[in-house]
Amino acid sequence: MRILGIDPGIAIVGFGFVDKKGSRLVPVQYGSIQTEAHTDPGLRLKEIYDAMQMLIGKYKPDAVAVEKLFFNRNVTTAFSVGQARGVILLAAVQRGLQIGEYTPLQVKQSVVGYGKAEKHQVQEMVRMFLHLSIVPKPDDVADALAVAICHAHSSALNDKINEVSKR
Amino acid sequence: MRILGIDPGIAIVGFGFVDKKGSRLVPVQYGSIQTEAHTDPGLRLKEIYDAMQMLIGKYKPDAVAVEKLFFNRNVTTAFSVGQARGVILLAAVQRGLQIGEYTPLQVKQSVVGYGKAEKHQVQEMVRMFLHLSIVPKPDDVADALAVAICHAHSSALNDKINEVSKR
Repeated sequence: MRILGIDPGIAIVGFGFVDKKGSRLVPVQYGSIQTEAHTDPGLRLKEIYDAMQMLIGKYKPDAVAVEKLFFNRNVTTAFSVGQARGVILLAAVQRGLQIGEYTPLQVKQSVVGYGKAEKHQVQEMVRMFLHLSIVPKPDDVADALAVAICHAHSSALNDKINEVSKR
Repeated sequence: MRILGIDPGIAIVGFGFVDKKGSRLVPVQYGSIQTEAHTDPGLRLKEIYDAMQMLIGKYKPDAVAVEKLFFNRNVTTAFSVGQARGVILLAAVQRGLQIGEYTPLQVKQSVVGYGKAEKHQVQEMVRMFLHLSIVPKPDDVADALAVAICHAHSSALNDKINEVSKR
């Protein structure tokens, strides 16, 4: 199963494709979509949407995982991130992809095993899980990979539950 | 010039097409896009995007006007409205439409002439400007028409400034 993790934003969208092969997680491609600050907001949304369509078309994920909410940010940021997240979800839904949404707490618990983990702890665990030599930059990329890992763990758990109920 | 005014939301999107003929404003079509509460959020965004594409394709506006920010709402609402606004702006930008963004203060000043006007005063002025017998419902429709009127007034002002500078 191939999972696309996303850390949405208007200036930087982090993305990471991760293949789940049994219990192994293999990074396929990761990086960021960046838009210019002084461009028209509508055009920035179109750039993000077009890039997302291109990435989904090229790497063909089976599922998309994205953070649910940003509790520690202000209304203006939430509004702006929300707009970017809207066009990202749209690109995923248009391809018929399942969308997994996880709170920052769920991501930390899943990746580090501790809901109040520090950012650098999450990043270090992402590096270890994916056998990377360095933590991907900017932070948005590591965050996108973290939510992909969270989805992989969560779907692994679902697989187990299904197996149990089949017995 | 035909203006499409929008009041974005995830449950209800108000819309109103208004023709500006000289100093007259003529309502063309108005109403709301409504999505079911218990539907997947991604699917609701797709419904809004599809409906927007259909409306823009059918009524062919020259410009889109939308409220800029919601200062009096909380982070969760801002996030959710932001997502809907994102796919609405995307549909407009994909058609190459100009987008006018106005704060609630600008809309009230433009429609009522008073930035602290009450909601019912704005609605009554919308009704009068467009020669309607009753205020359109739900409120989101009247709000969408208000921002369209604001854009009409604002572009009328721009026309005047251009004329002056041409002399």
